Amino acid sequence: MNTERHKDHETHETHEAPRNAVRPARLAATAHDDGVDAAAAAARRLIAALLLAGDHTDADMTGVAKQLHAIADQLEAHAPAREERMVAMWRGEGITRHDPVTGPENALAPPLALYGKDDGSIEGTVTLGLPYQGPPGCVHGGVSALLLDHTLGVANHWSGTSGMTAELTVRYHRPTPLFEPLTITGRQISVDGRKIRTVGTVSAGGRDCVTAEGLFIDKHLPRPR
Amino acid sequence: MNTERHKDHETHETHEAPRNAVRPARLAATAHDDGVDAAAAAARRLIAALLLAGDHTDADMTGVAKQLHAIADQLEAHAPAREERMVAMWRGEGITRHDPVTGPENALAPPLALYGKDDGSIEGTVTLGLPYQGPPGCVHGGVSALLLDHTLGVANHWSGTSGMTAELTVRYHRPTPLFEPLTITGRQISVDGRKIRTVGTVSAGGRDCVTAEGLFIDKHLPRPR
Repeated sequence: MNTERHKDHETHETHEAPRNAVRPARLAATAHDDGVDAAAAAARRLIAALLLAGDHTDADMTGVAKQLHAIADQLEAHAPAREERMVAMWRGEGITRHDPVTGPENALAPPLALYGKDDGSIEGTVTLGLPYQGPPGCVHGGVSALLLDHTLGVANHWSGTSGMTAELTVRYHRPTPLFEPLTITGRQISVDGRKIRTVGTVSAGGRDCVTAEGLFIDKHLPRPR
Repeated sequence: MNTERHKDHETHETHEAPRNAVRPARLAATAHDDGVDAAAAAARRLIAALLLAGDHTDADMTGVAKQLHAIADQLEAHAPAREERMVAMWRGEGITRHDPVTGPENALAPPLALYGKDDGSIEGTVTLGLPYQGPPGCVHGGVSALLLDHTLGVANHWSGTSGMTAELTVRYHRPTPLFEPLTITGRQISVDGRKIRTVGTVSAGGRDCVTAEGLFIDKHLPRPR
């Protein structure tokens, strides 16, 4: 099934060459300890701390809001124009740095680190906290769908033929716990013309909580330039 | 189809009674201008500003990271224990304040404000920026799935019979644009025993970009207490 591996010239520069790479190969950008990655990591901690505190504490939320706006003012003053930034985002390794699932620059992303395996599948582990809650104490079903949609897309890259999601079916077998390590997997199962079929799972403690199958079409939107 | 409206005693306290409410009724918590809502709104701006800036600017990212960690330190010092906080989260109006789609206290949430309509459907409008990007300039397919899963759940509440997602099928018809107003809709179409079927759309400029259908089961996890 991986005969077309690395056909996808649009994206191959983001991954190690499977043939020579040490396994498993990291398929998402590695977070740096400094720069915007460090600031985004701190922002993640802040998001969780805000939600944990809530109202009715002695924390000075008005002061916190003022401080955050002041930092945002400073960042916006230094930021490039959006169009210019988007070109950089979609150049080279940049393309795995900003997404809302694996991106170290994106504070919405847990972030999930995904690794490619010899058998053509990919896998990652993540523990989710309060910001990702759906039912009490459990991961939001839509968050599992988000993680799986992205993971299936990365599994397609790893197998060499990727595309855009046409249809995603997500099945919920049991509640997915917060605060426990979750294993996320993805595996391309077929390529038939431009139609790509890919499956994935979210499991906890060795039991599948959520499974997904996706139909992808081998086409890509142009990158900003 | 709405014969069971308001059967759902677990959740009805979060919504206006449809019979007497001024239409359309707001189905998500209204964000306050102060307290944790204001701080979460500032945190959303910060997340977007970090991603817009990226690396390679003159912004002092090390300093930003330090400031954010200091704020998180302060919030964590004032925060209740997680178990205690979760009880408060799931009490009364709290249940629509913290989720990652509509929750004003959750900086991951855009947030999406949803309104119930007389015909039993619900609707909301949202414009998404860089943190929600999937393909270049477009909303991440998994983010659309997240918005739709949540919206279908709220549509179930509005129709009076809600439950947990068992299966969600999401179809992608055309790219969903960032930076433009999106309309999100949801509508419960049938209740058959404990099986609930619900549909929804994400549209831009009057054209459907993403559609979803969900199968929900009328059961609920216990709330923390």
